[in-house]
Amino acid sequence: MELQNDLILRAARGEKTERTPVWLMRQAGRILPEYRAIRNSLSGFKELVETPGLAAEVTIQPVDILGVDAAIIFSDILVIPEAMGLQYEMIEKKGPWFEKTINSATDIEQLKVAEADDLSYTIDAIKITKERLDGRVPVIGFSGAPWTILSYMIEGSGSKTFSRARRFLYTKPVLAHKLLDKITQSTINYLFGQIEAGANMLQVFDSWAGILTTEQYKEFALKGIREICEAIKAKHPELPITVFAKGAYFVRKELGQLNCNTIGLDWNMDIAESRELVGSNKTLQGNLDPCLLYSSEETIKAETERMLREFGPQRHIANLGHGVYPDTDPGKVKFFVDTVKEFRF
Amino acid sequence: MELQNDLILRAARGEKTERTPVWLMRQAGRILPEYRAIRNSLSGFKELVETPGLAAEVTIQPVDILGVDAAIIFSDILVIPEAMGLQYEMIEKKGPWFEKTINSATDIEQLKVAEADDLSYTIDAIKITKERLDGRVPVIGFSGAPWTILSYMIEGSGSKTFSRARRFLYTKPVLAHKLLDKITQSTINYLFGQIEAGANMLQVFDSWAGILTTEQYKEFALKGIREICEAIKAKHPELPITVFAKGAYFVRKELGQLNCNTIGLDWNMDIAESRELVGSNKTLQGNLDPCLLYSSEETIKAETERMLREFGPQRHIANLGHGVYPDTDPGKVKFFVDTVKEFRF
Repeated sequence: MELQNDLILRAARGEKTERTPVWLMRQAGRILPEYRAIRNSLSGFKELVETPGLAAEVTIQPVDILGVDAAIIFSDILVIPEAMGLQYEMIEKKGPWFEKTINSATDIEQLKVAEADDLSYTIDAIKITKERLDGRVPVIGFSGAPWTILSYMIEGSGSKTFSRARRFLYTKPVLAHKLLDKITQSTINYLFGQIEAGANMLQVFDSWAGILTTEQYKEFALKGIREICEAIKAKHPELPITVFAKGAYFVRKELGQLNCNTIGLDWNMDIAESRELVGSNKTLQGNLDPCLLYSSEETIKAETERMLREFGPQRHIANLGHGVYPDTDPGKVKFFVDTVKEFRF
Repeated sequence: MELQNDLILRAARGEKTERTPVWLMRQAGRILPEYRAIRNSLSGFKELVETPGLAAEVTIQPVDILGVDAAIIFSDILVIPEAMGLQYEMIEKKGPWFEKTINSATDIEQLKVAEADDLSYTIDAIKITKERLDGRVPVIGFSGAPWTILSYMIEGSGSKTFSRARRFLYTKPVLAHKLLDKITQSTINYLFGQIEAGANMLQVFDSWAGILTTEQYKEFALKGIREICEAIKAKHPELPITVFAKGAYFVRKELGQLNCNTIGLDWNMDIAESRELVGSNKTLQGNLDPCLLYSSEETIKAETERMLREFGPQRHIANLGHGVYPDTDPGKVKFFVDTVKEFRF
């Protein structure tokens, strides 16, 4: 199926684009009343993730309502631990919670390597999304990065410090690598399934990247991401991959050497410095402060245009530096999207 | 009173020291069973903060038990908002909680500028500590930085994103500056009181520095810290001041230009890069990963010595890159302290 708008794919590959493409992390979600209506009719967040027709519907909402240049499949990074054997609950206003966590060699041996079939609800949601979108915009598939997934599997919930997970890296490095390998293999299987279902590009989210030391990030986190990129690129060299390692300012140079197309920047990362560290062969994505969308349209316009100029006309995908916050006015989100779309260098 | 050990003061001033001084953030606290025994005999954390004799006792415990080169007065950064008129509770396993938060001009007008007398419990705790220590080691006084204090006063509790506080900066910048000025003035009064009570050096903690954009940090956070440093130095030019802005890697150069002696580094910050950005006229403090103290003595020793070599023999105060985690084995903490004390270049 021919894409009517492939701006984001061309930007990721470093091809010339007429304008900068734009989307938002967490664009399919609580900011939209249309999302909340569907979500509130269900038992919980996970029912929405696991119901392909509805997941597809909320995936497409921001394309219709906000006019973004890509749809990202509505799902959750924690479907991977679940497919490997660790059930979790998403507790309202608290976040994820796992009854069982990983602590020993036996715990790790008991985990299965997930196959795409174990995650058929997301695979099916992508198929339905592709069908319904009918080529209007590309679909982004995604996964968590192995370190972030491991941190939840050990910690059992969110944490301010993730000190249990980091302790595991210090005290049980061999087991940590075993677990990371199993997560990495599961993630590769899952992402292949997403591509077969029609995902046009992929993003790997390393949400807790910023909490590791440089040495630990290189040893425990980069390896899995590198393997994921290599495995995907070996089979699908043209499919763009984005790596977003939030807070990992200290390894931007190393991220720039990955076999991927785009590096996501958070709002603390200086654009010129990041370009220098990442190199000229990668596209950059980001990086407005999500809180900027609480300001006046005048401020949003000024800051968005300043950002666009700073990134320059090519090799940039406009986005926030993190997921859009749930209490953001969708009118302001649309204003941000429109500002990017109307801007010309 | 003559100090028997003034290593940390000399290191802060850039004078030659026989060895690197060492202390830990949160050394007076839950890691020590001796602390927990006192804490558990009371109604809560705040009773301990507000009882000078007991606050002094837990302040001195790590000097006796761990052999650190300084005592930091046991208190809490949130005593300032309370002295300004916002009561808070410290809820077990959850953190601080304010019933009333700041949202309007009237809210800010109703706040008082705190005087040292409003915080006499900490002032008295310093006096008692000084008396009991009898010159064994210097006493560090401290406060939160104005941005971090403002963030709690607006948010009302801890937060993963502090998005309400950041929204306030974007939407009500004039009010934000008014509130920051009032916090800054209160903090200066409080720190003067601490010095008069005998504090030998001061540390300003900007715990939520890393969540602001570079522009916002310069506009809203640095100004107050700068004013605090200037006010203290105008009256007490010889008293060393440390600024620890956790996560604010993006303004290390600007921090290096403050009228203070020492800049604290967190465990993500590269030592050589930080030295270059901060400049050669400041002492650096830090910066081992607190999770390192979960590892074997062999690893702790190797990593501590690697860090000491990287900082070099002068202008370094050894510490972790954040407060010691409460579940750390005190034996390991002592081993870290001893490793620093026994190391020779």
